[in-house]
Amino acid sequence: MKAPYIVIISTGSEITAGRSVDTNAGWMANQLFELGWKVKKIIGLPDDPDLILSELQTLKKLAETKPVLVLMTGGLGPTEDDYTLETVLKLNGKKSYSVEKAKIRLVSVYESRGKQYSDILPTVLRQTHVPEDCKTLDNTVGIAVGFVEPMGTNSYLVCMPGVPTEMKEMFRRRLVPELKRIYPRENLVQRTKWLWNIGESLYQKDFVETHREELFQNVEWGVTANRGYIKCIFQSTDANQLDTIVQRLETQYPNIISDDVFDFVHEHLLSEKLTIAVGESCTGGLLGKKLTDTAGSSSYFLGGFLTYSNKMKESLLGVSSETLQQFGAVSKETAEAMAKGIFEKTNADYCISITGIAGPDGGTELKPVGTVWIGLKTPDGSIQTHSYLFPGNREGIRENASNTALFLLNQSLKQRNV
Amino acid sequence: MKAPYIVIISTGSEITAGRSVDTNAGWMANQLFELGWKVKKIIGLPDDPDLILSELQTLKKLAETKPVLVLMTGGLGPTEDDYTLETVLKLNGKKSYSVEKAKIRLVSVYESRGKQYSDILPTVLRQTHVPEDCKTLDNTVGIAVGFVEPMGTNSYLVCMPGVPTEMKEMFRRRLVPELKRIYPRENLVQRTKWLWNIGESLYQKDFVETHREELFQNVEWGVTANRGYIKCIFQSTDANQLDTIVQRLETQYPNIISDDVFDFVHEHLLSEKLTIAVGESCTGGLLGKKLTDTAGSSSYFLGGFLTYSNKMKESLLGVSSETLQQFGAVSKETAEAMAKGIFEKTNADYCISITGIAGPDGGTELKPVGTVWIGLKTPDGSIQTHSYLFPGNREGIRENASNTALFLLNQSLKQRNV
Repeated sequence: MKAPYIVIISTGSEITAGRSVDTNAGWMANQLFELGWKVKKIIGLPDDPDLILSELQTLKKLAETKPVLVLMTGGLGPTEDDYTLETVLKLNGKKSYSVEKAKIRLVSVYESRGKQYSDILPTVLRQTHVPEDCKTLDNTVGIAVGFVEPMGTNSYLVCMPGVPTEMKEMFRRRLVPELKRIYPRENLVQRTKWLWNIGESLYQKDFVETHREELFQNVEWGVTANRGYIKCIFQSTDANQLDTIVQRLETQYPNIISDDVFDFVHEHLLSEKLTIAVGESCTGGLLGKKLTDTAGSSSYFLGGFLTYSNKMKESLLGVSSETLQQFGAVSKETAEAMAKGIFEKTNADYCISITGIAGPDGGTELKPVGTVWIGLKTPDGSIQTHSYLFPGNREGIRENASNTALFLLNQSLKQRNV
Repeated sequence: MKAPYIVIISTGSEITAGRSVDTNAGWMANQLFELGWKVKKIIGLPDDPDLILSELQTLKKLAETKPVLVLMTGGLGPTEDDYTLETVLKLNGKKSYSVEKAKIRLVSVYESRGKQYSDILPTVLRQTHVPEDCKTLDNTVGIAVGFVEPMGTNSYLVCMPGVPTEMKEMFRRRLVPELKRIYPRENLVQRTKWLWNIGESLYQKDFVETHREELFQNVEWGVTANRGYIKCIFQSTDANQLDTIVQRLETQYPNIISDDVFDFVHEHLLSEKLTIAVGESCTGGLLGKKLTDTAGSSSYFLGGFLTYSNKMKESLLGVSSETLQQFGAVSKETAEAMAKGIFEKTNADYCISITGIAGPDGGTELKPVGTVWIGLKTPDGSIQTHSYLFPGNREGIRENASNTALFLLNQSLKQRNV
């Protein structure tokens, strides 16, 4: 069957006032993408029944021309600004009823808190209501029942709670099987690769355009730009075709290609029982933060030094004042001396040093803002140094520098396993 | 003038495919809220010129009935799926031209990388183009020029890059003055205060509901939840009324109220010529990162120690193995010893130590996940210690811990100035 025209609606004045970021819509879009479906539109609306009704009426009208699937979250709670049920009833001229199973669940929650049925406020009880003749979606995490409401030929309006944990469980366990039944599709496969220090447009011109005829006939591709790298995503029903693309990508970009370096570094340091320590100047702790984002990092991350001032580079890492004076704090020699100092203080298998100019001040003609030196002491005792000129503002340069340090670590770990 | 009907559009297939979360829309909505404007609708669209054009046509039609302000981000980049300019030209039947200033900037970026004008791809050059007869918005961070395009009486379509750093700079520096000129408002005054370790709903019940009649007659209020604190925002044309509210807030919450601690700490460390150093365990560098987010932090931030392992706590900060064994790494005694060690190694006026259990593993009955001890050595030589049980996941606990450390520093700096 033809894929439906999919619209996601997130309701909540906290979203349109920018007080909270809507993560539900993106999460659902991603789940749908992996099922092989594309979302045509994501809408955020305030808790305003008129605006919500008007939007749904527009979509119901659209459903007269093609299959439309609307996924709406929020507005099913117990407060006075929860309007979803009443709006849907108005849209389709229906009445509601209380779902027995949900009511029993609600009562048992109250009883477990030492309260009775009569203590339940009408607005709380309303959460067990759904429109007549709809398909209900059980809520196994919270109280509010979700539902799939017909909205024309092959068109449906799905209403789910806005609480992410409730919505996600409902989506995965209840909604996906229902959607697969309503809209049967083929199975899509996906591959993702990262390319470092290359722009989206250059990649598109040199790889996608060049191989479009040969490789991309039945393949969807996408690319997202990140600090220091781009993510290249490929989707198809033909897994072999995707493998061919990935092989070609590896041949064309042997030195700048990687998988997810955060995962790769974590897994390899763990499995090879290697340790790591860092010394950071311009990144001020960001590399250490990234290395410890993942639980379990205490198995390999020993610690590090934030040597922001020259004095600290000397006293904590033993960088000589001659090196600092002769070559400067942002130099190959200082990066090397820092990496050496980290090793002497920690004995870690890998020691990474970062020193650079994050700006906006401090740049010179020879060393403009964005100049960064990274030192990497590897388990064989040698120290590599790499220099970069990163684009962007202070935040961008710091993100670039710490991500690129992880890429260098990634490459060294990869080489051990060749 | 009546406030316009505001719609925010974020374009990008990475958004509707859920590969990246749209943070631009929420950020802009929040900025607009602070200017006294409410957003009626947030829309996310894929990089599909037909869908974008159709949406803009609908909004242009709406602009025939009332002032409409559309803020659109994305689609101004150099790749083939960047359609914003061509769509806007089609919408209004216009031609484009290359903005000289932007072209010069682009060329100088290329020259700094040793390339020439002839190396610039046409798609890259396209980023300097805008529609005829629009108001341009300079991009001081990247290349793509933004613009404000008329769309009917008192109605405008604003197009900005999707790269957050570029958009934010453009929004604050270029767009806001323009919007204030186009839609003059009564002078709204705003006050923002931060409250620490208190929930939104409790604040709303205990402060807003209690004083609604008396204090909030002509005042708009909002609250945003952050890691460790909530931001309480008040808006009115009556500055005196706002001062009364703030005084009341300070009386009711004397110990947990602050201004923006990031600003306050930065300004006071600078102006009082005080220095700071840190020692981080569970936050792994996040506190150092936050302290160095702001340019100029090198004047006060000396450096720090990432003592993730017990061994590093001993070797780098001189925490005794007895202390670690008897009280544990997450304890008052260890936090105190770490702060002492930081001072001995750096001589900084303020020394902050953080040690805690960020989880998801490592919690016990007595010290559950979220337990964090913070030590603060102040300029008088004394060391305070504070313990917390922070909610949330690993990321949340680490954010909470480092933000709260800044709050403690804020309170100590505030006390010096009483």
